[in-house]
Amino acid sequence: MNQILRFKKEDLVNFVEKYLSKLGASAEDAKIISNVFISADLRGVESHGLQRLVAYYSTKQFFNPTIPAKIISESPTTALIDGQKGSGQVNSYYAMNLCIKKAKEFGMASVTVKNSNHFGIAGYYSMMALEHNMIGICMTNSQSWIVPTYGKKSVLGTNPISVAVPSLHEYPYVLDMATSAVSYGKVEIAKKKNVEIPNGWAIDENGNTTENPNDIVPRKKGALLPLGGTEITSGYKGYGLAMLVEILCSALSGGIFFSQIGAPNSSESAGVSHFFMAMNVDSFRPILDFKTQMDAMIQDIKNTPKAGNNETIFIAGEKEFELEKFNLENGIPLIKPVYEEMIADGKRLGVSFDLKPINN
Amino acid sequence: MNQILRFKKEDLVNFVEKYLSKLGASAEDAKIISNVFISADLRGVESHGLQRLVAYYSTKQFFNPTIPAKIISESPTTALIDGQKGSGQVNSYYAMNLCIKKAKEFGMASVTVKNSNHFGIAGYYSMMALEHNMIGICMTNSQSWIVPTYGKKSVLGTNPISVAVPSLHEYPYVLDMATSAVSYGKVEIAKKKNVEIPNGWAIDENGNTTENPNDIVPRKKGALLPLGGTEITSGYKGYGLAMLVEILCSALSGGIFFSQIGAPNSSESAGVSHFFMAMNVDSFRPILDFKTQMDAMIQDIKNTPKAGNNETIFIAGEKEFELEKFNLENGIPLIKPVYEEMIADGKRLGVSFDLKPINN
Repeated sequence: MNQILRFKKEDLVNFVEKYLSKLGASAEDAKIISNVFISADLRGVESHGLQRLVAYYSTKQFFNPTIPAKIISESPTTALIDGQKGSGQVNSYYAMNLCIKKAKEFGMASVTVKNSNHFGIAGYYSMMALEHNMIGICMTNSQSWIVPTYGKKSVLGTNPISVAVPSLHEYPYVLDMATSAVSYGKVEIAKKKNVEIPNGWAIDENGNTTENPNDIVPRKKGALLPLGGTEITSGYKGYGLAMLVEILCSALSGGIFFSQIGAPNSSESAGVSHFFMAMNVDSFRPILDFKTQMDAMIQDIKNTPKAGNNETIFIAGEKEFELEKFNLENGIPLIKPVYEEMIADGKRLGVSFDLKPINN
Repeated sequence: MNQILRFKKEDLVNFVEKYLSKLGASAEDAKIISNVFISADLRGVESHGLQRLVAYYSTKQFFNPTIPAKIISESPTTALIDGQKGSGQVNSYYAMNLCIKKAKEFGMASVTVKNSNHFGIAGYYSMMALEHNMIGICMTNSQSWIVPTYGKKSVLGTNPISVAVPSLHEYPYVLDMATSAVSYGKVEIAKKKNVEIPNGWAIDENGNTTENPNDIVPRKKGALLPLGGTEITSGYKGYGLAMLVEILCSALSGGIFFSQIGAPNSSESAGVSHFFMAMNVDSFRPILDFKTQMDAMIQDIKNTPKAGNNETIFIAGEKEFELEKFNLENGIPLIKPVYEEMIADGKRLGVSFDLKPINN
């Protein structure tokens, strides 16, 4: 089972930076894109990690890393950016930094980006606020996946929300959730394992809840349910949240929406919109008081009596921080198809993937 | 069945204002409190309407309407207010107005309030932003009801989130949702009807999901599940959202949290915290462009093919706007115990409830 190899973070960063430079990215932008991708693999979100690198940036050059973001309008606490269909990661990094800069001066700030591309994990950008003792918020719209309550065709994207909040000794609180009940990835796994899916995840082409994962075929039939499932378990709340994300991303930026949005790795440019916000805690109350209260609240939650055989109640982000620590020590795991693709495309571009795996 | 009488809005407002003045509220504050209560009944949220008037403000004077809110700290875009255990409605009205004023000048703003009391429907305050062409946000923490994923005892409140967004010809989008799967009120109704509750609403005292509503007894046993239900249907997302509301309300304001919060109509003062935000749309893009896109998005959703026999896909807030229109024309419905309590307590204070019901 030599299917998974583990690599040192520095080695991967080094390769990806060189690789992106060959594709025309500036040194600075190559570093940003590389960090966002690798952060996903580090935190266990492989679906958003390096497995997307070649597909997005090289083979068909869906994302052009040489196009800069452009500010369209600006106020003391807001900005609207045209991503000009460049790199989702670079656009987002730039937008979140602008939020932080404005929040430092005025207390809080928010920036929207239109005409952007898939930006990786939302949590990367919300977490950028942490070292500045700020609360960071990040959202993005995405291609149609979710059905609105009482509908039978997907309209809304899985539209994720991420919020990062600093704490003192505990891990920061980092929410990073799609507003769908689950991601399509979970349905795919059920298909591969040939098992049923739980009621409340998805509907078939007639709009009925289904336990058969084969009833859901992307852009053909079936759809994911919003968080909460059907009406009886308050799925309209998840649908309302997905709509909220769509509003803050595309209506506030003037970006395209719903079925206008293409798949991230298709010839139609995705053209997604993002929303970022930073709030300076010190503008409300002293940061140390805030962080102390965060720790107390986290401890209260963790001390809640457990159901059944559960030993731990997790705080949002905790599992990912644990995994990040483990992977930094033991190497970042990549599956064979992913590192083989990087080796092959690196070779094509003249960037040699001469990394020593750790577990060899 | 003369149990329900309908009254003209103006008549109810008139009575409640006089009634609150007798209890010491200023004319201005009496008007605010009256409007918030009656807005709940108008929009069909009777649980948060006039049925709470006497319990909160008169009999035991849990809420003292004569205590003013006090600003503790302030920046161009933020403020922290001490509600001093006065009226939740007055504190919140004042805080949201402060948000709007700051957002007009700087683009966006946020205000937190601690030591406050139950403020009625969250949607009242988020909707205050609409006439200013702003997006309004409002949250509040509340007494323990929700269990965190893998826990068996409630820690978090049902912590509602409300967001109001202006549109052009369509109704504004008004999300107003608890972060629990359902409110305890729905469990109570199942108890009265002697019917089972759906899987995903609540747990029993051992932390197992239950379909028996009698397994849930406030502050004794059982608990509500967060939006999303158990782990398998992503209940940890609802739990994460409830925690987010708690953070933005109490950690950002320095208010009490979780089990420290008492019931709103008990001798322990509730001491809840609120969070308000206003975003000036014009700071991002021209308001007319924004509103036009809102209408287009709403129409896209409403035109989605319907499942089964459903004829309408609803937008958040739509049902409540329809009901408000109906009740303004036909009178606001009050059940007998509610108007009888108002008649009796009005008499005690020397404020006569001489309202002519409409459907008599």
